[in-house]
Amino acid sequence: MTSTETVRNGVDTATMFATLDAIKAQPEIAQFRFRARNTWMGGAHNRSAIKGFYAACAEDSSRTAGWTLDAGEPAILLGADEGPNPAEYLLHALAACVTTSLVYSAAARGVRLTSVTSELEGDLDVQGAMGVNTEDFRNGFSRIRMTVTISGDAPAEKLRQVVERGRDRSVVFDSISNGVPIDLSVVTV
Amino acid sequence: MTSTETVRNGVDTATMFATLDAIKAQPEIAQFRFRARNTWMGGAHNRSAIKGFYAACAEDSSRTAGWTLDAGEPAILLGADEGPNPAEYLLHALAACVTTSLVYSAAARGVRLTSVTSELEGDLDVQGAMGVNTEDFRNGFSRIRMTVTISGDAPAEKLRQVVERGRDRSVVFDSISNGVPIDLSVVTV
Repeated sequence: MTSTETVRNGVDTATMFATLDAIKAQPEIAQFRFRARNTWMGGAHNRSAIKGFYAACAEDSSRTAGWTLDAGEPAILLGADEGPNPAEYLLHALAACVTTSLVYSAAARGVRLTSVTSELEGDLDVQGAMGVNTEDFRNGFSRIRMTVTISGDAPAEKLRQVVERGRDRSVVFDSISNGVPIDLSVVTV
Repeated sequence: MTSTETVRNGVDTATMFATLDAIKAQPEIAQFRFRARNTWMGGAHNRSAIKGFYAACAEDSSRTAGWTLDAGEPAILLGADEGPNPAEYLLHALAACVTTSLVYSAAARGVRLTSVTSELEGDLDVQGAMGVNTEDFRNGFSRIRMTVTISGDAPAEKLRQVVERGRDRSVVFDSISNGVPIDLSVVTV
């Protein structure tokens, strides 16, 4: 096969299947550690640096540059729109992960996609997080709705299965819907 | 009080306490809906637009501009580093939210902070998400570690309490550690 023939939805399926085979042969290469380093900039403004990660039994050296991400709050939450707020970043993480998972899933199943868009909305009553009424309201989102609109060269039922498969294999969907234990340590200087 | 006197850690505490009073008087203004709209760009690359939200019984009109956020994957996960990956965005959302929560909490308690940084690391064995071994591995992070380093004009024990209070009031910390129900809908076109 030529390279062109193995690329579907922008994903090199030959490399994908080779990666799966490599993991089956040596499962310890599947262990990843992702990282973020955050610095408070003042008020509602803080900034994360993203670059290094651990994978395939070593520190990654492929990324030559990283990214900085600014978070803020709108005026109604005492900020100055220094960036999307943390709750909006959470929705973006979810959207991005389900999308990539379903695109990879479609590539593996021979489905060529034409377009994928999604709209997400999360419900939050800030009486919890603001400490006004912690009996009746949790701090976090009470519910998140995600609508994926998809088109491609497969019947509607197959496209639906691709989306559901993406959901069922998504790192962030699982992390948010089922929860993750978080260990918090504090260093005072 | 002058405006200068009410601002602590870059947070206007007079506005903060007025907001809390307003919510106590009219709890329905505390209902928020945050949103993200994502578009697949090809392969591991997708992009979210963030702007509108609902709060205080109305659609927000304060934000004049929004943001776009690019997500990608490193080469080892079949991408081209088009942006941080979704799992890294999740860590950023967590870092940002705990930071803002603790900064606001410190402002409310009269603690002036000098610096707040945090390092986050999430453990992930991709045998789950890749479908290689779904018996032994979940899709999502198995564990997240967050270390907050903080300094300010209060004793170490008080600074520690400020961080713990930030954790205990954080929207994203609660969402990730306790989970959120997510409704997924699919539209085929």
